[in-house]
Amino acid sequence: MEFQDVVLRRRMVRNFDPDRPVDQAVRDRLLSNALRAPSAGFSQGFEFLVCESFDSNKRFWEATTPEDSPQDTPFLEGMRRAPLLIVPLSNRDAYLDRYAEADKGWTDRDESRWPVPYWHIDTGFASLLVLLTVVDEGLGACFFGIPPARIPSFREAFGVPGALTPIGAIAVGHRAPDAPSPSLKRGRRTPEQAVHHERW
Amino acid sequence: MEFQDVVLRRRMVRNFDPDRPVDQAVRDRLLSNALRAPSAGFSQGFEFLVCESFDSNKRFWEATTPEDSPQDTPFLEGMRRAPLLIVPLSNRDAYLDRYAEADKGWTDRDESRWPVPYWHIDTGFASLLVLLTVVDEGLGACFFGIPPARIPSFREAFGVPGALTPIGAIAVGHRAPDAPSPSLKRGRRTPEQAVHHERW
Repeated sequence: MEFQDVVLRRRMVRNFDPDRPVDQAVRDRLLSNALRAPSAGFSQGFEFLVCESFDSNKRFWEATTPEDSPQDTPFLEGMRRAPLLIVPLSNRDAYLDRYAEADKGWTDRDESRWPVPYWHIDTGFASLLVLLTVVDEGLGACFFGIPPARIPSFREAFGVPGALTPIGAIAVGHRAPDAPSPSLKRGRRTPEQAVHHERW
Repeated sequence: MEFQDVVLRRRMVRNFDPDRPVDQAVRDRLLSNALRAPSAGFSQGFEFLVCESFDSNKRFWEATTPEDSPQDTPFLEGMRRAPLLIVPLSNRDAYLDRYAEADKGWTDRDESRWPVPYWHIDTGFASLLVLLTVVDEGLGACFFGIPPARIPSFREAFGVPGALTPIGAIAVGHRAPDAPSPSLKRGRRTPEQAVHHERW
């Protein structure tokens, strides 16, 4: 698909056909493109958990759904139908290690040297590449957060090493009818609102 | 250009033809695509500073180059030739405000509700859309960080409101010969290294 069409067609899809798995070659392409995300110092501090079986998907939802949340919200019902879940995780230590090397020289590994957490931003780059590749494949996907209170149970459920932090999760599948997010009623911000020429 | 070609051709370009400005329609398309970045709750907490004049580009480099850094590194020499600079800035308050609305209900505006700073990640999404659109236009770009110690002078130079944080800057222009980053010698991580099926 033309690049611009991918950009224009991308939106979060919140319901999936539970009976159509994602082809393994497609899944591999999503992850291969994710690994092409740019990263500070080519640190590549991102990893991915892939769930695509009844057991691991069930484990994911049990570990991450807020305990005080109704289990039958339309959002959760739609999301749980996704046959493929990809969890992108950032590795801060990979950046601190990389920049402690001789060519960078930040041997103190002091996090205050970083203006913003590029480990999360770069893992976000990888996530957006998944979302865009999903559109190119004619599939649907939704990126959503894992509540902080459920991150420990998520870690335990999947044996996630302590150095890795999930920045969210991506549900992927063949699209089924869904309602657009009510948030879209807010309207997209315009260049006049968000772009500043030469200065404020 | 085909989406996959854009993904495969993207790389950071570190030198530019100083005599060829970026067409205004192209610049506008970069920013228009940036504004299509997904965002939590459609908060859209990202703004962009655009510098494309001799004066504002000079002001940018004077405000952001580390004071203890040699002024003539090959990296800086190449970057300074870029005719267009786009600085993506994240707005945390836009997220706290959005999620304090009735449909979300986080009226305490407590940042600990957020597993990771989506204001930075979403602004990163917008930045990657700029980088990819640059490739689609046949141009070159490099995303780089602004050192924390220079952020106050950057703010002062451009009158940046306190709510906004630059997550980096993007130099854009017509490509000139450059050396690939030595970091690339590290090699790209493979799916075998970075992808975990079903669990660790």
